[in-house]
Amino acid sequence: MNAQPSSHVDAARLQRRHQALAAIGATAAGGVDRQALSAGDAQAMALLVQWGRERNFTAALDAVGNLFLRRPGSQPQQPAVLSGSHLDTQPGGGRFDGSYGVLAALEALEALEDAGLPCRRGIELVAWMNEEGSRFAPGMMGSAVLSGGRTLAETLAVADAAGVTVERALQQVKQALPPLDDRPFGTPVHAYVEAHIEQGPVLEQVGIPLGVVSGIQGKHTFRVEVRGEAAHAGTAPRRQRRDALLAATAMVQAMSAEFQDEADLTKFTVGRFTVFPNAPSVVPRQVSFSIDLRHPDSAVLRAASARVAAICAAARGPCEVQVERLVAADAVTFDAEIRARIHTAAERLGVTRLDLPSLAGHDAGLVSQVAPSGMIFIPCHLGITHHEQESAEMEHMVTGARVLADVLYGLAR
Amino acid sequence: MNAQPSSHVDAARLQRRHQALAAIGATAAGGVDRQALSAGDAQAMALLVQWGRERNFTAALDAVGNLFLRRPGSQPQQPAVLSGSHLDTQPGGGRFDGSYGVLAALEALEALEDAGLPCRRGIELVAWMNEEGSRFAPGMMGSAVLSGGRTLAETLAVADAAGVTVERALQQVKQALPPLDDRPFGTPVHAYVEAHIEQGPVLEQVGIPLGVVSGIQGKHTFRVEVRGEAAHAGTAPRRQRRDALLAATAMVQAMSAEFQDEADLTKFTVGRFTVFPNAPSVVPRQVSFSIDLRHPDSAVLRAASARVAAICAAARGPCEVQVERLVAADAVTFDAEIRARIHTAAERLGVTRLDLPSLAGHDAGLVSQVAPSGMIFIPCHLGITHHEQESAEMEHMVTGARVLADVLYGLAR
Repeated sequence: MNAQPSSHVDAARLQRRHQALAAIGATAAGGVDRQALSAGDAQAMALLVQWGRERNFTAALDAVGNLFLRRPGSQPQQPAVLSGSHLDTQPGGGRFDGSYGVLAALEALEALEDAGLPCRRGIELVAWMNEEGSRFAPGMMGSAVLSGGRTLAETLAVADAAGVTVERALQQVKQALPPLDDRPFGTPVHAYVEAHIEQGPVLEQVGIPLGVVSGIQGKHTFRVEVRGEAAHAGTAPRRQRRDALLAATAMVQAMSAEFQDEADLTKFTVGRFTVFPNAPSVVPRQVSFSIDLRHPDSAVLRAASARVAAICAAARGPCEVQVERLVAADAVTFDAEIRARIHTAAERLGVTRLDLPSLAGHDAGLVSQVAPSGMIFIPCHLGITHHEQESAEMEHMVTGARVLADVLYGLAR
Repeated sequence: MNAQPSSHVDAARLQRRHQALAAIGATAAGGVDRQALSAGDAQAMALLVQWGRERNFTAALDAVGNLFLRRPGSQPQQPAVLSGSHLDTQPGGGRFDGSYGVLAALEALEALEDAGLPCRRGIELVAWMNEEGSRFAPGMMGSAVLSGGRTLAETLAVADAAGVTVERALQQVKQALPPLDDRPFGTPVHAYVEAHIEQGPVLEQVGIPLGVVSGIQGKHTFRVEVRGEAAHAGTAPRRQRRDALLAATAMVQAMSAEFQDEADLTKFTVGRFTVFPNAPSVVPRQVSFSIDLRHPDSAVLRAASARVAAICAAARGPCEVQVERLVAADAVTFDAEIRARIHTAAERLGVTRLDLPSLAGHDAGLVSQVAPSGMIFIPCHLGITHHEQESAEMEHMVTGARVLADVLYGLAR
């Protein structure tokens, strides 16, 4: 058995860095508020650049604000191996979502240095710009532009609630950073591996410290507009009413029944439901509602998605209904070789693991369109995420970083 | 056949007064914005007092702001006959709702004067304070205090959105009026008759110029709070969710089905439906919604009302539900003798009429608790009301005033 970097993963260092990063944007309740391209996000990026420079890793920024730290390989013409996650958080986010994947990748790079293991390929840590999508919508902007799913121009033009564009916010971030190399889009990527907390309860429930992520469930979203007619609650007879709320609630109930599956894999959510004029004695003239529909199998998801408009039309009664599909992201299946490499590395370390799908979206899903990709999950407490009480065990963080280090080494050596 | 005041109803005078009143608070779109105890309302009251003084009618104000113009009778110890409606409007109200009943009563009093017909009883025109309830909630405040349904103290303490109380607004109104007599609460009332536009489409549809109102349908209202648990739309399995929106929409659909009656008399409306946190990718943790339930038959209404909590509980799934009844106003049946008098007066004038219930609430419903009461409806175009396009034909306004004049004379002579 060859020397592996996992033996040089340093739990104390990982913990120090985790605490240092969590201090940037720390909230009173123990969480983190560090939204994309904020002053806190810039400060976190600057800290990462500093940690990289201490190990002679080159820092680079691409035009959309993705940050890279590069450990060079002996054959610079070979595409590099990428690993990382994101530094931004939800407004009331936790200390692990995103940060853990960035720090696990850094720990892997440092372990390789400490072990004195040169590689043929470079390995790059990446911190993707705006994964969360809370300040600038939608999320996963940085990986979407790198993988060709969105244009740079449309992304730079997106504004936050205060009217500040991504372009302007990115300029401010750059002013807070030392001068960095430019990293051109289209730079080939050999493979991408992302470590992340599970954001679900499964690993904790079954007592397994590592998840080998099979893929990311697909997600289709819709906006439904139901139009009826306002009327006096006391005088308009039922048969003459065009009650938009009665129609919309019938649609929601019909879809809820239609999308129930015994295996409980389909996720159907109406999270936003807004009524006009929303007055107790007025029959509603309009309802707008959202649909979020997810399934790990793209074929099943597409079939369900294709039925949405017909179900709404059948339940509309005397109202009009318009169904607009906003997002149609198919399910992602991660690269079989990467998954096998994660299993092998874990096996060699004696780490038990579980194959499981990711129910939340991740940058890895988009990167998988341009390079073989995979993900490692570690357990998080009760599946709580996007919340200040998000938590994970240092023991699991170390295990994930050890497996990641060996996988990256295997891909790059 | 005796002389009747109806022959002295003066269409030109009624039209002039209608136009003069509609000019106070007139909106650009042809409607009226003259909310309760506003400067416009005070100006309308002052105009009414002036018109009364021109005919030597005594003006009086009670402690809650109801305005009275009295044509004295020959036997002052006999309780007077009352007739009127209200001068206040919705913010974007029309020129007929309320105003017509006030002007029809004034026209009746003037016709009696013009005809030189003395009466045993006094006849009082009344303009009720705050029927609409748009500035100060709830509506029908003036008639509620007079009939004992609300206390004077609680009513004077009600504040508008700007924090101005009824008491303060009433002081300002008094400053805009000449000194008026005080009218004590508890003054006996012999009978009350109110003329009003139908606020529904029936009379126009059947081509009948006069409605003899059988009563006012009852109204029960509720606030329902459904509590579940917020969860991630992508990760929370259906069986573990406590989706407040799914539960609330099931409740609405269950009630809608349960309250459908073949005769289309039950009015079931969910006008307000508010979702928390109302975000597309978050399973809703709470929904608050209103129920407005009406029926002309109190027994039927009470039975339906009594089922609301059980239907909501049965449909709550894994959520919690709290049902609070806010209003429980039984149906009102107007006095049989008053209704017969309206029929007789109309018959003598050759006016066809229809018995019909009022689906909207009116001050007459409250006054009926302290005196025999009734209502006369005239057609309004398409049933449009609480709207600047509210309209009624002058021909019908005159017919209504003629019938009203003869009915009042019959009650007071």
